[in-house]
Amino acid sequence: MPIISKKGQQMPASPIRKLVPYAEEAVKKGKSIYYLNIGQPDIKTPEIALQAIKECNIDILAYSRSEGSETYRQKISAYYSKHNIHVTHDDIVVTTGGSEALLFAFGSIMDVDDEIIIPEPFYANYNGFSTASGVKVVPVISKIENNFALPPIEAFEKLITPKTKAILICNPGNPTGYLYSKEEIQKLAAIVKKHDLFLIADEVYREFVYDGNTHYSVMQETGLEDHTIMIDSVSKRYSMCGARVGCLVSKNKTLIQTVLKFAQARLSPPTLAQIASEAALETPQSYFDAVIEEYVERRNTLISELQKIDGVKIAKPKGAFYCIVELPIKNSDDFAQWLLENFDVNGETIMVAPAGGFYSTANVGLNQIRIAYVLKKESLIKAVNILKEALKVYNN
Amino acid sequence: MPIISKKGQQMPASPIRKLVPYAEEAVKKGKSIYYLNIGQPDIKTPEIALQAIKECNIDILAYSRSEGSETYRQKISAYYSKHNIHVTHDDIVVTTGGSEALLFAFGSIMDVDDEIIIPEPFYANYNGFSTASGVKVVPVISKIENNFALPPIEAFEKLITPKTKAILICNPGNPTGYLYSKEEIQKLAAIVKKHDLFLIADEVYREFVYDGNTHYSVMQETGLEDHTIMIDSVSKRYSMCGARVGCLVSKNKTLIQTVLKFAQARLSPPTLAQIASEAALETPQSYFDAVIEEYVERRNTLISELQKIDGVKIAKPKGAFYCIVELPIKNSDDFAQWLLENFDVNGETIMVAPAGGFYSTANVGLNQIRIAYVLKKESLIKAVNILKEALKVYNN
Ligand SMILES: Cc1ncc(COP(=O)(O)O)c(C=O)c1O
Ligand SMILES: Cc1ncc(COP(=O)(O)O)c(C=O)c1O
Repeated sequence: MPIISKKGQQMPASPIRKLVPYAEEAVKKGKSIYYLNIGQPDIKTPEIALQAIKECNIDILAYSRSEGSETYRQKISAYYSKHNIHVTHDDIVVTTGGSEALLFAFGSIMDVDDEIIIPEPFYANYNGFSTASGVKVVPVISKIENNFALPPIEAFEKLITPKTKAILICNPGNPTGYLYSKEEIQKLAAIVKKHDLFLIADEVYREFVYDGNTHYSVMQETGLEDHTIMIDSVSKRYSMCGARVGCLVSKNKTLIQTVLKFAQARLSPPTLAQIASEAALETPQSYFDAVIEEYVERRNTLISELQKIDGVKIAKPKGAFYCIVELPIKNSDDFAQWLLENFDVNGETIMVAPAGGFYSTANVGLNQIRIAYVLKKESLIKAVNILKEALKVYNN
Repeated sequence: MPIISKKGQQMPASPIRKLVPYAEEAVKKGKSIYYLNIGQPDIKTPEIALQAIKECNIDILAYSRSEGSETYRQKISAYYSKHNIHVTHDDIVVTTGGSEALLFAFGSIMDVDDEIIIPEPFYANYNGFSTASGVKVVPVISKIENNFALPPIEAFEKLITPKTKAILICNPGNPTGYLYSKEEIQKLAAIVKKHDLFLIADEVYREFVYDGNTHYSVMQETGLEDHTIMIDSVSKRYSMCGARVGCLVSKNKTLIQTVLKFAQARLSPPTLAQIASEAALETPQSYFDAVIEEYVERRNTLISELQKIDGVKIAKPKGAFYCIVELPIKNSDDFAQWLLENFDVNGETIMVAPAGGFYSTANVGLNQIRIAYVLKKESLIKAVNILKEALKVYNN
């Protein structure tokens, strides 16, 4: 029998995957499930994007340029300038989702055994991309007590070794919902400059910022041009996760040239989805206003419902659509499975993401879960009620 | 200044890339170019595939399953069974082009410094995927004199070390057009079994087989199930390169589970393109018959025109739509650039792919070029005439 690579063996399964069979079994038994575990919004894709696909008149569905179509990149740069991010189309490589942008960034700046510092809890697939690239994640813990704000900069500094190549942040954060302030970004800017590191900022949730806050991008920080790599995606912004279009943005020319070589090897990002993504850029502001209003309402509902439960700790999200919740339990892996296997309220139960998978440090976050508020208000109210009842039973 | 990875520095640029500026310059100066260098066919995408996109009624463009949509995988397995390849949908992982399938295969079976044996000349991006995976390509040379048939199996055996994890073939071949016989596949089967290696077969040109030959897939070889990985793609089959849909197929369960972890990390293959690809499976046989007829005519035209040139050696392709041609020159890199910069016949010139980039061994194939016969007959005649005239001038 030929053998699987060590890398392949070490590739992490998604933290939710092991729950899937239990969810399928529950559904088979007739239970209804509120899926609080997913990052697939129920928001409609802008009509203008879907329409563009229907109306496009191509007779050969050809490769696009490896770096993405020129018109699309030009229009993205115009979109960015509205967000006070000033880049040209040459600073942009269109990728197959933010996922591929992350992979290209990792490959371009890190070799095997190099290290990347990431505040935890973090988007679980950073682990997968790190393993695939043979790179070591060095976590720096952020705390629910501080709403997952940036850890003290000394905590980063202590972890920097000759192998450290980058710091990666997600802003606003999945799974934390935390929005970094300009001051926090500037602290990171100082440290990456001092140690000649890259600062990768995953800003796929840029548009999802609440309570009158504004998003401060790493690309707005002057003097940091050679150090910053921004990861972006249309997936969440326009609720078109299935398009598989994202991009990598940097003003560091050597970096972009390197990323391009990775892009050329895989030939082209998806052509149809680029047409949809280009059209999506014309989405009227009213669409975003309505979406933001909806998410704020959902978040507020979620938080106020959760606050009715004894012993629950919540980091109030300022952005994105996730929320880490600490529960009066020992092990959320066990709890999440138990919810699917052994619990229901009138035939309904909930599926949550155990937070352990979002931490790189072992045995941290075991009493936490991540809730994605991608469901309607009424569903969220019912779902939190199920959680409340479940805790009573589970803790006895 | 933060530094680029060694891997990033070593990533090869596509062998055609360095010619692009010269081509752009030539066009600016008013020259017309026959592009014999590309793998983007001019064949129309089946109407049924494009129509499916126009008619699909989705209001949320959502992620599909990481392994590809269930109905699509089921229909692919039905398609394969028509080609005497018997696999279930569980043996299939849908990928973002054959490119991603290759990357997942490499990642799943090889760690840094592992080795993969590939008959050369080979598809140049195998180099890119190898570098990205930190893997070493060990070439075994195949010869134009033998039409690029499988090198003697002893040549493979000599190269096997404890680090060897796989043999990779492309069947039919890009850039050779060679179609491996059942006997050749069985020789490879014996050696991979003996040494517990994987046999990866890139069969993206399966449908493009001429002169009454039939394609023998590695998946048809019984007893080889745990060793074989097939790479496939809709890009060439349906002339829908821009879809970015391919798949990886294997009956080795551990392998598929490993590939799935890579697939989960990047979430989903493109959703719209899967809809088009699923519909494309209904393409009538008449479409393929017409396409094959067209390619055979083009190939025959190309070959007979080339044979009129003194000192030219050709490996007659039995499949795919590429042809390696040996020219009475020393350096095809220089010649290809010269064609764009300094030559034209009535304002027209040609762009060819220097074959050096398809060899891993240094200084081999320097007098060869690859011609893709993806242009109409009349254009091919004119293009070869330009080549003929060019050689007269260049060699003086
Ligand atoms: C923080 C973050 N980054 C990147 C991604 C990747 O998304 P995509 O590849 O769909 O752009 C996601 C998706 O959930 C995410 O949450
Ligand atoms: C031999 C071979 N394999 C794989 C590919 C990758 O194609 P895609 O990623 O479009 O499926 C190509 C494209 O030219 C090819 O020629």
